[in-house]
Amino acid sequence: MGLEIERKFLVKNASWRDAIEDREPILQGYLAEAGRATVRVRAKGDRGFLTIKGRTTGVTRSEFEYEIPIEDARTMLESLSSLPVIDKVRHRVRCGGHLWEVDVFAGENAGLVLAEIELASEDESFERPDWAGAEVSDDPRYYNSNLARHPFSRW
Amino acid sequence: MGLEIERKFLVKNASWRDAIEDREPILQGYLAEAGRATVRVRAKGDRGFLTIKGRTTGVTRSEFEYEIPIEDARTMLESLSSLPVIDKVRHRVRCGGHLWEVDVFAGENAGLVLAEIELASEDESFERPDWAGAEVSDDPRYYNSNLARHPFSRW
Repeated sequence: MGLEIERKFLVKNASWRDAIEDREPILQGYLAEAGRATVRVRAKGDRGFLTIKGRTTGVTRSEFEYEIPIEDARTMLESLSSLPVIDKVRHRVRCGGHLWEVDVFAGENAGLVLAEIELASEDESFERPDWAGAEVSDDPRYYNSNLARHPFSRW
Repeated sequence: MGLEIERKFLVKNASWRDAIEDREPILQGYLAEAGRATVRVRAKGDRGFLTIKGRTTGVTRSEFEYEIPIEDARTMLESLSSLPVIDKVRHRVRCGGHLWEVDVFAGENAGLVLAEIELASEDESFERPDWAGAEVSDDPRYYNSNLARHPFSRW
């Protein structure tokens, strides 16, 4: 088990594109969003992952992630996950001493760009890049599980 | 992915105990029982498993099973699964050419004994042992996911 400490921001301009280190397409869906956990299936490039996250509040959540065969992930996305599946391209972007993840959404969430930084502790300091806008870590509308059910295009 | 073809029977006497090959304690809980899939966590002896089953009808279901660290399984059972957790001892019992699984439930399902046989196809024939009573394959009360929510002792 890991504990995930993540802060999430809206992206207000495209200057982050100058610092892209790599990018990867991600398809992800949810097998469960009720109860005390969310269960996520993800096809990340040609690798599959199953992730269980506890529903703890705030920026820290318990997380269990397992790699699974990509064929299993694709079958679950097609036949078992709630729809619509989230379709995005994840960019890793260097800023100061940290690697950010900037997700450019497509499909029903087209138009949404979110930046995330993972921290080792809740009080770890980090440089806030000029392209990072309002913080939305605590706004449940931006949880990917909620973006699957209530996509950005319908807000 | 596998397809699971399973038939389930009540057990009407204890004569199956003469043919026990081995037994193993199982604790299992559910991270999800809504939507199109159930997500099960199981501690089986000292091994952990995460299992996703599609909600297809009848005796055939799609199934994905992954072994996970036993510590992860225990933590999920304690903190993330719906309660109460199912507590049973699984006995493998030889009958004719097949190995049956006879589950003796404890805790909130104490008093319930169920026998299951896994088949390679829906029309595969098998010998029905004299200790096997009524078939309950299609009775949703006997799904383990439902026994977690509505245990036998409260029927």
